[in-house]
Amino acid sequence: MTEPQQAAWLDAIAFGPDGLVPAIAQQHDTGEVLMLAWMNRAAVAETIASGRACYWSRSRSRLWRKGETSGQVQRLVELRLDCDGDALLLRVDQQGVACHTGRRSCFFRAARDGDWPTIAEPLIDPKQLYRE
Amino acid sequence: MTEPQQAAWLDAIAFGPDGLVPAIAQQHDTGEVLMLAWMNRAAVAETIASGRACYWSRSRSRLWRKGETSGQVQRLVELRLDCDGDALLLRVDQQGVACHTGRRSCFFRAARDGDWPTIAEPLIDPKQLYRE
Repeated sequence: MTEPQQAAWLDAIAFGPDGLVPAIAQQHDTGEVLMLAWMNRAAVAETIASGRACYWSRSRSRLWRKGETSGQVQRLVELRLDCDGDALLLRVDQQGVACHTGRRSCFFRAARDGDWPTIAEPLIDPKQLYRE
Repeated sequence: MTEPQQAAWLDAIAFGPDGLVPAIAQQHDTGEVLMLAWMNRAAVAETIASGRACYWSRSRSRLWRKGETSGQVQRLVELRLDCDGDALLLRVDQQGVACHTGRRSCFFRAARDGDWPTIAEPLIDPKQLYRE
Protein backbone atom coordinates (compact mmCIF):
# COMPACT_ATOMS: atom_id res chain seq x y z
CA MET A 1 0.00 0.00 0.00
CA THR A 2 1.10 3.60 -0.61
CA GLU A 3 2.15 5.86 2.26
CA PRO A 4 -1.09 7.91 2.27
CA GLN A 5 -3.10 4.65 2.19
CA GLN A 6 -1.13 3.30 5.12
CA ALA A 7 -1.55 6.55 7.06
CA ALA A 8 -5.33 6.46 6.56
CA TRP A 9 -5.42 2.81 7.55
CA LEU A 10 -3.43 3.45 10.74
CA ASP A 11 -5.70 6.42 11.53
CA ALA A 12 -8.53 3.93 12.17
CA ILE A 13 -6.68 2.84 15.32
CA ALA A 14 -7.47 4.98 18.37
CA PHE A 15 -4.10 5.11 20.09
CA GLY A 16 -4.26 6.35 23.69
CA PRO A 17 -2.76 9.59 25.03
CA ASP A 18 0.54 7.67 25.43
CA GLY A 19 0.38 6.62 21.77
CA LEU A 20 -0.32 2.98 22.64
CA VAL A 21 -3.10 0.44 22.30
CA PRO A 22 -3.32 -2.94 24.04
CA ALA A 23 -2.70 -5.87 21.70
CA ILE A 24 -3.79 -9.42 22.46
CA ALA A 25 -1.82 -12.27 20.89
CA GLN A 26 -3.83 -15.42 20.29
CA GLN A 27 -2.65 -18.70 18.78
CA HIS A 28 -4.67 -18.78 15.55
CA ASP A 29 -5.63 -22.45 15.50
CA THR A 30 -6.05 -23.46 19.15
CA GLY A 31 -7.50 -20.12 20.31
CA GLU A 32 -5.14 -19.97 23.28
CA VAL A 33 -4.56 -16.42 24.53
CA LEU A 34 -0.79 -16.12 24.68
CA MET A 35 -0.07 -12.63 26.00
CA LEU A 36 -1.11 -9.02 26.14
CA ALA A 37 1.34 -6.37 24.98
CA TRP A 38 1.26 -2.81 23.65
CA MET A 39 1.67 -1.33 20.19
CA ASN A 40 2.30 2.15 18.90
CA ARG A 41 1.85 3.28 15.32
CA ALA A 42 5.32 2.18 14.28
CA ALA A 43 4.84 -1.26 15.83
CA VAL A 44 1.61 -1.83 13.90
CA ALA A 45 3.22 -0.67 10.65
CA GLU A 46 6.23 -2.94 11.16
CA THR A 47 4.06 -5.93 12.10
CA ILE A 48 2.11 -5.59 8.86
CA ALA A 49 5.22 -4.99 6.76
CA SER A 50 7.24 -7.87 8.23
CA GLY A 51 4.45 -10.37 8.94
CA ARG A 52 5.86 -10.85 12.45
CA ALA A 53 4.55 -9.38 15.70
CA CYS A 54 6.38 -6.25 16.77
CA TYR A 55 5.31 -4.51 19.99
CA TRP A 56 6.28 -1.43 21.94
CA SER A 57 8.16 -2.31 25.10
CA ARG A 58 6.97 0.05 27.82
CA SER A 59 9.80 -0.98 30.14
CA ARG A 60 12.55 -0.48 27.55
CA SER A 61 10.80 2.36 25.64
CA ARG A 62 11.61 0.91 22.26
CA LEU A 63 10.21 -1.34 19.55
CA TRP A 64 10.26 -4.96 20.62
CA ARG A 65 10.46 -7.42 17.79
CA LYS A 66 8.98 -10.43 19.56
CA GLY A 67 11.55 -13.23 19.50
CA GLU A 68 14.53 -11.01 18.62
CA THR A 69 16.42 -12.31 21.67
CA SER A 70 14.61 -15.58 22.46
CA GLY A 71 13.90 -16.78 18.92
CA GLN A 72 10.24 -17.31 19.92
CA VAL A 73 8.74 -15.29 17.05
CA GLN A 74 5.06 -14.83 16.29
CA ARG A 75 4.11 -15.07 12.63
CA LEU A 76 1.10 -12.87 11.96
CA VAL A 77 -1.91 -14.72 10.58
CA GLU A 78 -4.50 -11.96 10.94
CA LEU A 79 -4.74 -8.56 12.60
CA ARG A 80 -8.10 -7.50 13.98
CA LEU A 81 -9.41 -4.23 15.37
CA ASP A 82 -12.25 -3.89 17.87
CA CYS A 83 -15.47 -1.87 17.63
CA ASP A 84 -14.03 1.21 19.34
CA GLY A 85 -10.73 0.97 17.49
CA ASP A 86 -8.79 1.01 20.75
CA ALA A 87 -7.70 -2.63 21.04
CA LEU A 88 -6.00 -5.03 18.64
CA LEU A 89 -6.16 -8.79 18.35
CA LEU A 90 -3.25 -10.52 16.66
CA ARG A 91 -4.00 -14.01 15.51
CA VAL A 92 -0.53 -15.51 15.32
CA ASP A 93 1.42 -18.69 14.90
CA GLN A 94 3.65 -18.76 17.98
CA GLN A 95 7.04 -20.36 17.56
CA GLY A 96 7.80 -22.15 20.85
CA VAL A 97 6.61 -20.20 23.87
CA ALA A 98 5.19 -16.71 24.32
CA CYS A 99 6.17 -16.10 27.94
CA HIS A 100 9.62 -15.07 29.16
CA THR A 101 9.21 -17.67 31.94
CA GLY A 102 9.32 -20.41 29.31
CA ARG A 103 5.59 -21.06 29.45
CA ARG A 104 3.43 -21.23 26.36
CA SER A 105 1.10 -18.45 27.64
CA CYS A 106 1.72 -15.55 30.02
CA PHE A 107 -1.65 -16.24 31.69
CA PHE A 108 -0.46 -19.14 33.85
CA ARG A 109 -1.90 -18.06 37.21
CA ALA A 110 -5.56 -18.66 38.09
CA ALA A 111 -7.71 -17.26 40.88
CA ARG A 112 -8.44 -20.00 43.42
CA ASP A 113 -9.78 -19.33 46.92
CA GLY A 114 -7.85 -16.14 47.55
CA ASP A 115 -4.64 -17.32 45.89
CA TRP A 116 -3.04 -17.30 42.42
CA PRO A 117 -1.64 -20.80 41.95
CA THR A 118 0.42 -21.59 38.86
CA ILE A 119 -1.55 -23.79 36.47
CA ALA A 120 1.03 -24.29 33.71
CA GLU A 121 4.67 -25.29 33.85
CA PRO A 122 7.53 -24.00 31.68
CA LEU A 123 8.11 -25.92 28.46
CA ILE A 124 11.58 -24.41 28.03
CA ASP A 125 14.15 -23.31 30.60
CA PRO A 126 14.28 -19.48 30.43
CA LYS A 127 18.09 -19.75 30.63
CA GLN A 128 17.96 -21.53 27.28
CA LEU A 129 15.78 -18.76 25.84
CA TYR A 130 17.99 -15.89 26.91
CA ARG A 131 21.36 -17.60 27.44
CA GLU A 132 21.67 -15.88 30.81
CA MET B 1 -12.22 -15.25 51.95
CA THR B 2 -11.61 -12.72 54.72
CA GLU B 3 -11.02 -9.06 54.00
CA PRO B 4 -7.23 -9.21 54.68
CA GLN B 5 -7.02 -12.34 52.48
CA GLN B 6 -8.86 -10.55 49.70
CA ALA B 7 -6.69 -7.46 50.05
CA ALA B 8 -3.52 -9.56 49.75
CA TRP B 9 -4.95 -11.42 46.79
CA LEU B 10 -5.85 -8.19 44.99
CA ASP B 11 -2.38 -6.82 45.76
CA ALA B 12 -0.96 -9.38 43.32
CA ILE B 13 -2.54 -7.37 40.50
CA ALA B 14 -0.36 -4.51 39.25
CA PHE B 15 -2.95 -1.84 38.53
CA GLY B 16 -1.64 1.04 36.41
CA PRO B 17 -1.23 4.66 37.55
CA ASP B 18 -4.92 5.16 36.64
CA GLY B 19 -5.88 2.23 38.87
CA LEU B 20 -6.81 0.04 35.88
CA VAL B 21 -5.62 -3.13 34.17
CA PRO B 22 -6.70 -4.41 30.76
CA ALA B 23 -8.97 -7.45 30.95
CA ILE B 24 -9.53 -9.84 28.05
CA ALA B 25 -12.82 -11.72 27.93
CA GLN B 26 -12.63 -15.09 26.17
CA GLN B 27 -15.42 -17.59 25.61
CA HIS B 28 -14.24 -20.49 27.77
CA ASP B 29 -15.12 -23.40 25.47
CA THR B 30 -14.61 -22.08 21.92
CA GLY B 31 -11.61 -19.88 22.75
CA GLU B 32 -13.09 -16.90 20.91
CA VAL B 33 -11.75 -13.56 22.13
CA LEU B 34 -14.88 -11.52 22.81
CA MET B 35 -13.67 -8.12 23.97
CA LEU B 36 -11.08 -6.13 25.85
CA ALA B 37 -12.19 -3.96 28.74
CA TRP B 38 -10.68 -2.47 31.89
CA MET B 39 -10.92 -3.35 35.57
CA ASN B 40 -10.09 -1.54 38.76
CA ARG B 41 -9.76 -3.15 42.19
CA ALA B 42 -13.48 -2.88 42.92
CA ALA B 43 -14.40 -4.44 39.56
CA VAL B 44 -12.16 -7.45 40.20
CA ALA B 45 -13.57 -7.88 43.72
CA GLU B 46 -17.14 -7.68 42.45
CA THR B 47 -16.48 -10.08 39.58
CA ILE B 48 -15.17 -12.70 41.99
CA ALA B 49 -17.95 -12.11 44.52
CA SER B 50 -20.79 -12.20 42.00
CA GLY B 51 -19.40 -14.71 39.48
CA ARG B 52 -20.25 -12.27 36.67
CA ALA B 53 -17.91 -9.98 34.78
CA CYS B 54 -17.88 -6.44 36.11
CA TYR B 55 -15.61 -3.88 34.45
CA TRP B 56 -14.69 -0.24 34.92
CA SER B 57 -16.23 1.93 32.22
CA ARG B 58 -13.65 4.55 31.28
CA SER B 59 -16.22 6.57 29.30
CA ARG B 60 -18.79 6.62 32.10
CA SER B 61 -16.29 6.54 35.01
CA ARG B 62 -18.21 3.95 36.93
CA LEU B 63 -18.48 0.22 37.49
CA TRP B 64 -20.02 -1.50 34.50
CA ARG B 65 -21.81 -4.71 35.29
CA LYS B 66 -21.61 -6.32 31.87
CA GLY B 67 -25.14 -7.00 30.66
CA GLU B 68 -26.86 -4.70 33.17
CA THR B 69 -28.60 -2.87 30.32
CA SER B 70 -28.39 -5.37 27.45
CA GLY B 71 -28.94 -8.60 29.41
CA GLN B 72 -25.83 -10.03 27.70
CA VAL B 73 -24.07 -11.12 30.90
CA GLN B 74 -20.77 -12.97 31.15
CA ARG B 75 -20.65 -15.75 33.72
CA LEU B 76 -17.13 -16.09 35.07
CA VAL B 77 -15.60 -19.51 34.54
CA GLU B 78 -12.01 -18.68 35.47
CA LEU B 79 -9.95 -15.57 36.15
CA ARG B 80 -6.30 -15.62 35.14
CA LEU B 81 -3.42 -13.25 35.77
CA ASP B 82 -0.37 -12.84 33.56
CA CYS B 83 3.33 -13.15 34.41
CA ASP B 84 3.79 -9.45 35.16
CA GLY B 85 0.48 -9.17 37.00
CA ASP B 86 -0.65 -6.31 34.79
CA ALA B 87 -3.22 -8.02 32.57
CA LEU B 88 -6.22 -10.24 33.32
CA LEU B 89 -7.86 -12.96 31.26
CA LEU B 90 -11.49 -13.76 32.05
CA ARG B 91 -12.63 -17.09 30.75
CA VAL B 92 -16.37 -16.57 30.58
CA ASP B 93 -19.61 -18.02 29.34
CA GLN B 94 -21.07 -15.20 27.25
CA GLN B 95 -24.84 -14.94 27.19
CA GLY B 96 -25.79 -13.79 23.68
CA VAL B 97 -23.34 -11.27 22.25
CA ALA B 98 -20.40 -9.36 23.75
CA CYS B 99 -20.38 -6.36 21.41
CA HIS B 100 -22.70 -3.36 21.66
CA THR B 101 -23.09 -3.59 17.86
CA GLY B 102 -24.89 -6.92 18.31
CA ARG B 103 -21.91 -8.98 17.19
CA ARG B 104 -20.63 -11.93 19.16
CA SER B 105 -17.10 -10.42 19.42
CA CYS B 106 -15.91 -6.81 19.38
CA PHE B 107 -13.01 -7.82 17.10
CA PHE B 108 -15.02 -7.90 13.88
CA ARG B 109 -12.72 -5.85 11.63
CA ALA B 110 -9.67 -7.40 9.98
CA ALA B 111 -6.69 -5.81 8.27
CA ARG B 112 -6.90 -6.45 4.51
CA ASP B 113 -4.85 -4.54 1.93
CA GLY B 114 -4.95 -1.18 3.66
CA ASP B 115 -8.55 -1.45 4.79
CA TRP B 116 -10.51 -2.77 7.80
CA PRO B 117 -13.43 -4.70 6.32
CA THR B 118 -16.10 -6.11 8.63
CA ILE B 119 -15.79 -9.89 8.86
CA ALA B 120 -18.75 -10.68 11.15
CA GLU B 121 -22.35 -9.57 11.05
CA PRO B 122 -24.60 -8.69 14.01
CA LEU B 123 -26.53 -11.60 15.49
CA ILE B 124 -28.93 -9.27 17.29
CA ASP B 125 -30.22 -5.82 16.37
CA PRO B 126 -28.59 -3.35 18.80
CA LYS B 127 -32.00 -1.65 19.11
CA GLN B 128 -33.26 -4.86 20.66
CA LEU B 129 -30.32 -4.91 23.09
CA TYR B 130 -30.74 -1.35 24.32
CA ARG B 131 -34.39 -0.58 23.42
CA GLU B 132 -33.28 2.67 21.80
